[in-house]
Amino acid sequence: MQLTGEMIIGQQLVRGAAGTQLAFNPATKATMLPQFGQADAADVERACALAEQAFDAYRSTTPEVRAAFLEAVANNIDALGATLTERAMAETGLPQARLEGERGRTVNQLRLFAKVVRDGHWQQATLDSALPQRTPPRPDLRLRKIAVGPVAVFGASNFPLAFSVAGGDTASALAAGCPVVVKAHGAHPGTSELVARAVQKAVADSGLPEGVFSMIHGDGRTVGQALVAHPSIKAVGFTGSRQGGTALMRTAAARPEPIPVYAEMSSINPVFMLPAVLAGGAEALGAAFVESLTMGVGQFCTNPGLVIGVAGPDFDRFAAAAAAALQPKGAGTMLTAGIHSAYQSGVGRLSQVDGVQVLATGQQEGAGCAAQAALFRVDAETFLASHALQEEVFGPASLLIACRDEAEVLRLAAGLEGQLTATVHCTADDHGFAAKLLPTLERKAGRVLFNGFPTGVEVCHAMVHGGPFPATSDTRTTSVGAMAIERFLRPVSYQNVPQALLPAALRDDNPLRLARIVDGELRTAI
Amino acid sequence: MQLTGEMIIGQQLVRGAAGTQLAFNPATKATMLPQFGQADAADVERACALAEQAFDAYRSTTPEVRAAFLEAVANNIDALGATLTERAMAETGLPQARLEGERGRTVNQLRLFAKVVRDGHWQQATLDSALPQRTPPRPDLRLRKIAVGPVAVFGASNFPLAFSVAGGDTASALAAGCPVVVKAHGAHPGTSELVARAVQKAVADSGLPEGVFSMIHGDGRTVGQALVAHPSIKAVGFTGSRQGGTALMRTAAARPEPIPVYAEMSSINPVFMLPAVLAGGAEALGAAFVESLTMGVGQFCTNPGLVIGVAGPDFDRFAAAAAAALQPKGAGTMLTAGIHSAYQSGVGRLSQVDGVQVLATGQQEGAGCAAQAALFRVDAETFLASHALQEEVFGPASLLIACRDEAEVLRLAAGLEGQLTATVHCTADDHGFAAKLLPTLERKAGRVLFNGFPTGVEVCHAMVHGGPFPATSDTRTTSVGAMAIERFLRPVSYQNVPQALLPAALRDDNPLRLARIVDGELRTAI
Repeated sequence: MQLTGEMIIGQQLVRGAAGTQLAFNPATKATMLPQFGQADAADVERACALAEQAFDAYRSTTPEVRAAFLEAVANNIDALGATLTERAMAETGLPQARLEGERGRTVNQLRLFAKVVRDGHWQQATLDSALPQRTPPRPDLRLRKIAVGPVAVFGASNFPLAFSVAGGDTASALAAGCPVVVKAHGAHPGTSELVARAVQKAVADSGLPEGVFSMIHGDGRTVGQALVAHPSIKAVGFTGSRQGGTALMRTAAARPEPIPVYAEMSSINPVFMLPAVLAGGAEALGAAFVESLTMGVGQFCTNPGLVIGVAGPDFDRFAAAAAAALQPKGAGTMLTAGIHSAYQSGVGRLSQVDGVQVLATGQQEGAGCAAQAALFRVDAETFLASHALQEEVFGPASLLIACRDEAEVLRLAAGLEGQLTATVHCTADDHGFAAKLLPTLERKAGRVLFNGFPTGVEVCHAMVHGGPFPATSDTRTTSVGAMAIERFLRPVSYQNVPQALLPAALRDDNPLRLARIVDGELRTAI
Repeated sequence: MQLTGEMIIGQQLVRGAAGTQLAFNPATKATMLPQFGQADAADVERACALAEQAFDAYRSTTPEVRAAFLEAVANNIDALGATLTERAMAETGLPQARLEGERGRTVNQLRLFAKVVRDGHWQQATLDSALPQRTPPRPDLRLRKIAVGPVAVFGASNFPLAFSVAGGDTASALAAGCPVVVKAHGAHPGTSELVARAVQKAVADSGLPEGVFSMIHGDGRTVGQALVAHPSIKAVGFTGSRQGGTALMRTAAARPEPIPVYAEMSSINPVFMLPAVLAGGAEALGAAFVESLTMGVGQFCTNPGLVIGVAGPDFDRFAAAAAAALQPKGAGTMLTAGIHSAYQSGVGRLSQVDGVQVLATGQQEGAGCAAQAALFRVDAETFLASHALQEEVFGPASLLIACRDEAEVLRLAAGLEGQLTATVHCTADDHGFAAKLLPTLERKAGRVLFNGFPTGVEVCHAMVHGGPFPATSDTRTTSVGAMAIERFLRPVSYQNVPQALLPAALRDDNPLRLARIVDGELRTAI
């Protein structure tokens, strides 16, 4: 398939007329054709108007139609094959194996949501029987969840497939019955065009209204803001920087009708190394930690940016092993020139804080936007006193924190901002202390994990990729896993609605065979 | 029990030192003793600090302990008997039967949440098995929902028991495991003190940390805002005016850590009278509508403020019957002098819009803050052109809208703001048109009801008392019914957590006997 630089607005290909943009290869620092035309206000309006027009028809499709559509999107993305991988490699500097894995994750995610849609648990069908003899009589009441409305999705730079045009936000919104308008990320416009066409074709082949999906190009501060401000948009999915996410939150809150923003933004993912586990295996843990830190040039939301332990010979052995493992690590190409320069400033900022010691740096040489890994050490008192040390440095840099004792470890945990993840390494001998730490970590993070590293986010039913601000804008939700669909739903209650007019999920004969809550008791379908 | 005018901060009685307030009897316009001392910043700080201190211990209580505590609160409120009813009557002008009914509703609500806590469905326990043979291996992942943190609750003036100190917001937050700090409504400070002491005693008798519950007096613009801005507060429940609710929304969004606000604010609750039902029973419907409109002096969030039909002889008969039923209605005492004067301005504003016709007014004479019922009529075009006609007039006033045809009814429905309820009156002959109207009503309202009136909100599992803005600040939620607990929960995922450290809800042996989602399948406990 030949890239044209056009946007996908419903079933049309539209050349944006508000300027152009070229893609950029971060490994070679070369720009690439074609020219991508940028959206103007009329393009935003057209995409949103089509989404609005499509909404009622789309949300009323049967679970089977919607599930088959999601599977068609997955199949079309699979069919892009090497074309997609090659363009994504050129635009992101990510290696082939990683992008092939990410494509697998993307299509599996779409297929998981197809299963979720068919299962129907998301409808939360709930029935309370009429009690005509009661004083006053109780009416017949039935509840289901319905789609919230058209959704704006902002692709992320660090997952050009799994968190971009047809990534987790889009898949869960489409599953919920919401049309989607994507603002493509400027870091991978060609990848975005390829995937958007795959979705566009699935819309047509499934006989769905064209407004179910559109994708536009443009700057976040103009086109992105206009999209979030559009009255037809009823929710926003975003993965990116704290600055970008909070800007969208402000716009959404200032609308005549405020809408929810699901922004996944900023996390430093503390790792707690408890005493007994360090006593038993400080060296191996130091090396394993550096593997997690430098994987993908540290460009994961769940990258371990802090390691916390009690000062002493075991923590020193861990630090030495980590430093030794980090020093030979080559400089990897980062996703964009902007991310690269932000990383360099962040590392520079950390080095200059009084009391912060540079433990090790990786190799410097590398092509293009190459990032040198870096490991720092500081004591807990200095860390707690400096808010700057809690700011995310996106990339392969991490800070080891030595605490005086377990009490200081607990104080430090309590002083952390919200996180996507919190990790504990321990043996059975550490369980007493781990039990004291766990209640704090639950409050700080969306996912608490033991004896592993936080990179690698499983797409399943029990995943939470979320957490308190600033990790996300909405701690009640997850952007990965089956529960992500709940972000795009709202409950509606039906009182004394005639059977002929009730939605299928709530009819007496339960044609969708849903498990339902009936008079407060869960009843599985026979 | 003698009222003292003190606030309840943990297990202390504290006399607020930032000025005093007297209660006001809207029927007699007399003020009543004692003096209620108002909170200063230190009182807000103390209540929030206690809530924070109590949080981890309270959220870790077993479902049985928490359920028994909610039942103890209910029993203590029941035990207040006539003391409570008499003070509430004097402070609100509401009649005895209504307040006794509302007390029943309040304690039933607490008992419903006790049942909800024991059932445990709110934890959404979800388990995904480890797949060690997979490449890469899948870890063991388990998810549950936990309490979000201390909650600020703002009592409503129009439900001095069911939506005030120990009302739906407080009951659902306590059920979720969240300590609560109530800002009492200035319209019923004595009622608030009585109920707050009932809760305080239940906290002590249940052996819970004192910070689980506090109640302070003060102005919403100062004390209320300080409470919402306090870093320990993690969510807000509010029922009241659009102005008050949006002010709290702004404060919550501007915090360093933004938090969710659940504000139930403003709704005019459209009622659609379809042609066949009017042809068959216009007169009876006109009279029944006026009963709903004037019940409780129209001071319900779900009061029917709009009636929409197709112009013609049947709609005229309906209007005439409603006018005839309204005219003899006596002027009832409103809750506060402020609500009364806002009602008078609202009615005055409606009368002055070009094209609005006064169909009937009720009787004028009445004691104290007495409201004269009023019925207006307008055509759809005028209504759609005037945003002012969509503003809620809180009280016994309603507007009949005559549409040219069914298409104009649909356009009018599509032009409405978000609502708590939307009502359809129809016969089987109207089902074709009702089916066209329903998708729009679902998008506009939290509850769609047929052949009844929206006043009367059942407390059950399938209730949604919510809806799109401005009906509420968060369309994903309900403030009445079992699902209200979800507002105060957030999901946490546990990865490879040792059995010894896992919360009971997620342990292999399932000691709470919960229904859980295991590998995507719902499994009820044996």
